[in-house]
Formats: sequence, C-alpha cells, structure tokens
Amino acid sequence: MTIRFLYHSKDDPGPWAQAFRDADPELEMMVYPEMGDPAEIVAAFVWRAPHGLLASLPNLKLIHSKGAGVDHIFDDPKVPAGVPIARLVDPMAVAMMGHYAIYHALGYHRRMDVYRAQQAESVWRGLPPPDHERTTVAVLGLGAIGREVAGQFQRLGFRTLGWSRSAKTIDGVDCRHGADALFATLAESKIVVNVLALTRETENILNAQAFAHMPRGGFLINIARGPHIVEADLIQALDSGQLGGATLDVFRAEPLAKGHPFWTHPKVTVTPHMSGDPLPRTAALQVARNIRAALAGQPLLNEVDRRRGY
Amino acid sequence: MTIRFLYHSKDDPGPWAQAFRDADPELEMMVYPEMGDPAEIVAAFVWRAPHGLLASLPNLKLIHSKGAGVDHIFDDPKVPAGVPIARLVDPMAVAMMGHYAIYHALGYHRRMDVYRAQQAESVWRGLPPPDHERTTVAVLGLGAIGREVAGQFQRLGFRTLGWSRSAKTIDGVDCRHGADALFATLAESKIVVNVLALTRETENILNAQAFAHMPRGGFLINIARGPHIVEADLIQALDSGQLGGATLDVFRAEPLAKGHPFWTHPKVTVTPHMSGDPLPRTAALQVARNIRAALAGQPLLNEVDRRRGY
Repeated sequence: MTIRFLYHSKDDPGPWAQAFRDADPELEMMVYPEMGDPAEIVAAFVWRAPHGLLASLPNLKLIHSKGAGVDHIFDDPKVPAGVPIARLVDPMAVAMMGHYAIYHALGYHRRMDVYRAQQAESVWRGLPPPDHERTTVAVLGLGAIGREVAGQFQRLGFRTLGWSRSAKTIDGVDCRHGADALFATLAESKIVVNVLALTRETENILNAQAFAHMPRGGFLINIARGPHIVEADLIQALDSGQLGGATLDVFRAEPLAKGHPFWTHPKVTVTPHMSGDPLPRTAALQVARNIRAALAGQPLLNEVDRRRGY
Repeated sequence: MTIRFLYHSKDDPGPWAQAFRDADPELEMMVYPEMGDPAEIVAAFVWRAPHGLLASLPNLKLIHSKGAGVDHIFDDPKVPAGVPIARLVDPMAVAMMGHYAIYHALGYHRRMDVYRAQQAESVWRGLPPPDHERTTVAVLGLGAIGREVAGQFQRLGFRTLGWSRSAKTIDGVDCRHGADALFATLAESKIVVNVLALTRETENILNAQAFAHMPRGGFLINIARGPHIVEADLIQALDSGQLGGATLDVFRAEPLAKGHPFWTHPKVTVTPHMSGDPLPRTAALQVARNIRAALAGQPLLNEVDRRRGY
C-alpha cells in the first residue's frame, strides 16, 4: 500500500526523499507544488506552507511541522480545525541548537572576538582567565530543546539557570518558573539563551525592561523566534552598553531584509536560521512513525496542544 | 610559622597572592626577582623561570609548575636533581582547555567562518546541517586533560576517539594506544585535538606523514606544545588543502614572533597560549597543599616521574 504525503520546504528535497524511503518504503513523498490528486494526500510535512494549502487537502490526517515550532502553521488562518498537528523534535536538531548556543556563549565568555582582532594585528596578549563556575547562563524555555541546551551548559561547568512557564526539574540546573521569576533570573545571568515557544504570552518578552534587568554587558543568544525580541529595544540596549552582544539566528521577517541594522551592527552576530536544522536521517524516522500512527488513530509523538499553542 | 615560597611568572601576581592567603595564611609568597634570603625559600611555583634560578635556592623542597606541562622546567640544565617536581592540574584550567577545543571544533563543524563572511555581505544562505554523530574527533593524549577534553566532545554527541601512549579507558570514548595505532586513528578523524605531553617521543609527532593520514580537509587544534608540530609540514598541508584549518594556542617560540607566517595564514587561528590558564581561586589550594605535603615528606598530588618526563 502506498501512503502519499506532501513535502513543503525551501530545503533540497533529495536527502529527505531518500531518508523517507529508508524509513518506510511504502511512503510516497510528493514535493510541492507537485501533488497529483489532492484527495490522495493523507499527511503534510511542512515548513511555512502557503496559506490555504493545508485546507485544500480534503483527506488530511496529519499536519507535521518540519521544525520544533508550529507558529508558522497557526499563522495560516485556514489551517483545518480537525486535523492533528505534530512538532518535529529531532534529537539531532536539538543537540545542534545546544552546540550553536555553546559556541556563541564560549565565544563571549572567552572573548574570542578580542583574540581574533589581536591576531589581525599580530598581537600576543593573554587576558585574565574567566571563571566559568561563576558565570551564569540562563536558558529561557525548558521543553525538549531547553532541557538539552541547559544540560549542555551544565555539563561544561557553567552555573546554569532555567526559566519556564510551568515548573520543571533538570539535574544540576537551577529551575525557576512563572512570569514573576523572569526578571530575577535575568538579573543573575551574564548570558541568556532564548528557546521559548512563540505564543501570545512570550511575544515581545525580550524588551527594554528585560534587558535592563540583566547585568551590564550581558549577552543574548536567540535561537527561538524573532518576535520574542523587541528589535528597537535590543539595538538600544546594545548601543548603550547595557548588553555586550547579541547572537540572532531568528528574525521577525526571514530572510532578514538587506539593509536591516542587525546585519551591520558591530555587536550583533546574524545567522540564517540554521542553529538546529533537522537531519533527514533521524527526523524522517520520527515523521514516518507519526504518519502511520495518525492513520491508525494512535497517539502521536510531540502532538501539539492547540489551546496552549505548542 | 611562616612558609616562604617563590613565585615566578609573567602573569599579574596580585590575584595569586590573594588566593594563597585565602588558601593557607602561613604561606608567604615572594614575587621574583624579590626573594629575600634564598635559603629561606622552601618551594618554587614557576612558569619558565630563568635557568639556574631553582639551583640557587639551597633549601628547596618542592618545584611546582604553574602549568600542566613541566618541559619548561626540564629545559633548565641546572634543575636540582633531588627536589620533587609537581605539575599543576587545575580542574578549572583543564575544563577551560576543553571549552577552547569545543569552541574551535564547533566553529569548524558548523562552518561558522562561512556564516561570518556571509554576514559581512548581508547574505542569508543556510548550509546543509552537518551530522555530529558521524563526525569523528580524536583527542591525542589521555591524561587528566585529555580525559576531560574527550569527555566534553563525547557528551556533546560527537563520535570521539582517544589515542595515548599506554592503554586507557574512558566511557563512551573509543580509546587506542601505542605508536602503531596513531595513523589509523588519524585516518578516521575529521578533527584532531592535541593535548599530548611534550617528550622525546612526541616531539614532531604532527608532521607531513601524520597530516597525510587525516581525511582531506580535516582540522587540527593544538593546545599542547608547539614542538609537537613540524611547522613547515603544517603550512604545506594547509596550502595543499589536505588540512582545512588549524587552531594553534602554543608555539615553538612564545610569544609567536612578529612576521611568523602563522599570524597571517588564512587557515590558521592563533591565540596566545590562553586555552587553559589556571585559576588562582582553585589552583592555589592545590599548590598550598603540595607545599605542606612536601615539607611533611608526604606524597604529592600530580608528582612528576622524571624518567617518563611528565
């Protein structure tokens, strides 16, 4: 039996088609805009699909995000109401997001930008060693991604705080929760890594007030979503010296527009939403299993709670 | 009772004096070249002391390196024969060496140089995600430093190999040993991190033959000693494309001379021997305990085996 599903993404479909064949030979991947008879499509594996596309598939049994976020699905006003939605929590992508945060945090912690500038001038000058046990990193958001990112920092010896909406427990990580605890958490944290889900509650959460609570010269790493940040507030915090630097992988509008001040700001590192791309080899296994589960009416892995929004 | 010891280093002695006072108030730290009556000095805590200095201290009971390496002590032809020597294995410095290797390895793995160049041109372009579980890192040298460095890579999910003179076991790390196993280990390793001790056996071990065994485009990170590397061979391997990049924290002559080709080579990252500086807060505790142990004739922490050379 052939099970036909639709793939929509800007990434090269080749490695995905191969990985799905390896994962489940009965799956047939159609690459948008090719889709044959829309009535034969039973699942959609999508990243930022055109609005209305999902609603045009009458026999859809599963909407599967190609990323951990589903805000791009809820942005579509015509997203079909009765179809279950699943997030993709690829363990490799999650580990990669940790690696990305670790790389940039270590760069700030060890002042690698200074050493890079010194090399350009052939200058040999060591700086006093920083004390990672007394350097605090806060991870905002403690779902599957936040747990892994916080764990990576903790295992490297940093003092690690976590903050989330509801109470969580992670070995070796000092976890706080609820809106009231946010500013106190930021106040202790030299480096803040944002991995929150984007919801009405978390939009604009990283604003002037939040930055003002951080220690002067602190650093922000955003690998969640652009709308978590109030852009003008961030630029002001960087220009005033309140923040020492920001590494941004996500933006309100992607691709980041030419001419946007982030591209050229001396304290901003921009990357093109690459911190945690899913790896076809591991992710296709999970999606294939979810397609089978949806058709059989069984529970899904990482099913989205529509009311909560993630 | 006051116990007088001599400090010799180019680093600011202030934080060390404070840390020694905190660690053991009876210790009196003399900062070279001030040392009062040489006969009253019972221990020397040194980094690259002038040759003959140690021999000029008639009542020396302990020579304590200010780093994990002791080659700088054996370089002194007059180093007193009967005095025990200890290495400084500061847990914070060891963790920092891991962080340094992780930072540069992640930079290579994720091609952060490409993203940095793209930002400079306001270019938004993602690269295919690399697979860290299928990226092999080899750590050469599996003493206290190598174990920690290999463990950090392993815990981040990289396939991690270890290579050492004698057989070692580390959880999750595929350990090999002996001269015969070196080339086969290098042949599997996209990223090689050198933390070997410098001895007659390991000098020049990273040479043209070694580089030729690595996969084309591999990366070298040297946080051990400069003389492990045959410099001309490294430059040739980089220029031919056999190696994709090298991060060098240590050199045959330090500071690295102005005009040395490493400073300006596009594939070489130079840092001023800062990968793992000991932290006074933690290191002074260990040195203070060793001074007490040496005076009491008790076993030392990290005592050097003079025959083995480390």
